[in-house]
Amino acid sequence: MTPTAAVLVTGSELVRGGRVDENGPFVARELSSRGIEPEWVSVIGDRPEQLEAALRRALEHDLVITSGGLGPTHDDRTIELLARAAGRGLIVDPELEQEIGAVVRGLAERFRRPYSEFEAGVRKQATLPEGGVSLGLAGTAPGVLLQTGSALAIVLPGPPGELQRIWRTALERPELQELFARARSPVFRILRFFGLPESAVAGVVEQAGGEADGLEVTICAHDLEVEVDLMIPAGAESQAERISAALREAHPRALFAEDERAVEEIVLEAARGRGLRMATAESCTGGLVSARLTSVPGSSDVFVGGLVAYDDRIKLDALGVPEEVLERHGAVSAETAAAMAAGARRVLDADVAVSVTGVAGPGGGTEAKPVGLVYLHAETPDASHGVELRLPGDRDAVRRRAAASALHLLRRLLTQSRHEVV
Amino acid sequence: MTPTAAVLVTGSELVRGGRVDENGPFVARELSSRGIEPEWVSVIGDRPEQLEAALRRALEHDLVITSGGLGPTHDDRTIELLARAAGRGLIVDPELEQEIGAVVRGLAERFRRPYSEFEAGVRKQATLPEGGVSLGLAGTAPGVLLQTGSALAIVLPGPPGELQRIWRTALERPELQELFARARSPVFRILRFFGLPESAVAGVVEQAGGEADGLEVTICAHDLEVEVDLMIPAGAESQAERISAALREAHPRALFAEDERAVEEIVLEAARGRGLRMATAESCTGGLVSARLTSVPGSSDVFVGGLVAYDDRIKLDALGVPEEVLERHGAVSAETAAAMAAGARRVLDADVAVSVTGVAGPGGGTEAKPVGLVYLHAETPDASHGVELRLPGDRDAVRRRAAASALHLLRRLLTQSRHEVV
Repeated sequence: MTPTAAVLVTGSELVRGGRVDENGPFVARELSSRGIEPEWVSVIGDRPEQLEAALRRALEHDLVITSGGLGPTHDDRTIELLARAAGRGLIVDPELEQEIGAVVRGLAERFRRPYSEFEAGVRKQATLPEGGVSLGLAGTAPGVLLQTGSALAIVLPGPPGELQRIWRTALERPELQELFARARSPVFRILRFFGLPESAVAGVVEQAGGEADGLEVTICAHDLEVEVDLMIPAGAESQAERISAALREAHPRALFAEDERAVEEIVLEAARGRGLRMATAESCTGGLVSARLTSVPGSSDVFVGGLVAYDDRIKLDALGVPEEVLERHGAVSAETAAAMAAGARRVLDADVAVSVTGVAGPGGGTEAKPVGLVYLHAETPDASHGVELRLPGDRDAVRRRAAASALHLLRRLLTQSRHEVV
Repeated sequence: MTPTAAVLVTGSELVRGGRVDENGPFVARELSSRGIEPEWVSVIGDRPEQLEAALRRALEHDLVITSGGLGPTHDDRTIELLARAAGRGLIVDPELEQEIGAVVRGLAERFRRPYSEFEAGVRKQATLPEGGVSLGLAGTAPGVLLQTGSALAIVLPGPPGELQRIWRTALERPELQELFARARSPVFRILRFFGLPESAVAGVVEQAGGEADGLEVTICAHDLEVEVDLMIPAGAESQAERISAALREAHPRALFAEDERAVEEIVLEAARGRGLRMATAESCTGGLVSARLTSVPGSSDVFVGGLVAYDDRIKLDALGVPEEVLERHGAVSAETAAAMAAGARRVLDADVAVSVTGVAGPGGGTEAKPVGLVYLHAETPDASHGVELRLPGDRDAVRRRAAASALHLLRRLLTQSRHEVV
């Protein structure tokens, strides 16, 4: 039988909503892709009673992954409470204490503070439940593996980068590999669309027979992209094929990917394939488009730079938008967007440029140019195309959707027929 | 007695980790600030058995808030399963059906698709548990309030903007107001530091008596900021005062705020107060600094624009970094950072500018200039200051921390003594 799993993320700042958790999603993704979809991913505060109760509930599953509560401070209680929930004592691991001590000495030096200030924290972080095994350090906190009678608990630190590093070590442990061996990895398929309502996709799925043969279909929309996930157990392959074919046929132009690459990666690859260098000119998105493009490692061989032309003077002086265009049509207009894209190509010496200008809100809207009105323009050596959008949502949503739309406009312009995209 | 609460976030894409949930944190924050800290915030998939079981567990609390699962597609099952968990039937609300239909007609038009494609979805979204009350539409999904024997359930849509809008409507309902009236809003205090290790703050808290008198102290670090949250129940006021005073005295220079304003807001306010106009010049952060500055409504009266100078040619041609500076010191150097800041002030006609140049990785590092090496420089009409950083973490972490550090450098330069900051 497929092992069951629960993911427990600790931290008062998370349960009070002061911070958005990335670790639950990461662990969930790691487990799901290996065939163990967690039954729940819970965020629990640092209060001992509640955390201990949650740990007891979690230990009823075959696999428990926890995140957080390993720090040097008094409110980091995961180890102590896991030991209690599992009926184990606590011991200081002397080797671990030395290992953490060495890291902390460096830290103390960097911050120019006496080591004594850190000593109690080091001892605390070197304390394990009896029978627990260190998975090595990331930062100053060790990951811990504890095999109880019926459950395997893997205790990971809270900072996402550190959690991910220790997780990779945990993946090499035979205890965890045995559990994954008992799971049957499902096959996943993904189809991603841009510029369609969810309903249009859902209708096609239903007409093609929906979730027959145990197929699981998830449809979700995010920043104007609609993603269809098919989880395909044995026996559901032909139903998955039927639905995929129906979707491809119904929405050939909206389908832009059958994998998880972000649109910025697709755009960079398309430009790289054609030897084109790329620039941006952004007003209301304030740098979100260039930040997304440069989030991709290796983007520097394609992306040369961008201008955030927030003030109209920058549009005039730095981007060379003609004064009469700004005066006649205004900063938020198709004409200004076109001049911004052309200006970015010229000023930043690029082959391709995309521009964004719009009203992100909450202020600044008028009847003629309401909040959510956004103009995009993309220009390549052989094509030029503008788009007018009326985006719903608050300032943050308008900005995110405008940035996503700008990247998709680049994608469309750079990949002439859809057969080049997917 | 203080009511208990649970928050249930649904969505297979969330439990599989395909998406990071913002709604749990939002709701948790809303409840906590009114004195009802949720006992758990759980993400559950769309599988009916698991979701129904979680809803039953949640209904054991006084207050249940759910998010998601209200869409028009077959995998949106919150209403159906809540009805089952609460022992209620389902009915189509004809008024609601009309209301949703009107919205969807507009949508169909915009996407140029026949209304019939949407009709089944409209009926589904207009279906409520018996006794359920619509909280009004956001998008095409209604929020729903359902009073069961012992619990108040509030069902909110998944898209964060829509959830937040419907939540504001829910806050006006007497059923919810009664629950909040039974809770005692705790007093919160917050102290935020930059450039200190967590341990240095924790040591001061311990020495000042720690969590005496029922005070709850949470310390957490994020992108080089350390935040101390004090939750102060009646009777713990003087202990909270003792800890706050000790922290202020121990780390006067690192303390930068005693409220929740983001550093970009503090920076914009400081510049606004002095009538200064601001610009950015970014290399490795690729627009993250300008994106953070422009995320603040009204930033356009201070922030004029920015240059993302990713390629060295842009640093030379558009920013005017002297060729010999780039040749002698390299793009990642204190000298180039200084020339970028000066160039941004000149080219973008700003009073204040900040620059960032560094090695974000994963490639591009050398022994002399490793991944994580970042130079910042800020310049105002009367001051100029550079910083060298060696940031830990992956590409994303280096970029985020470099952007945060750049904003803090601006803050320090714009607020001469800390008494002007807090």
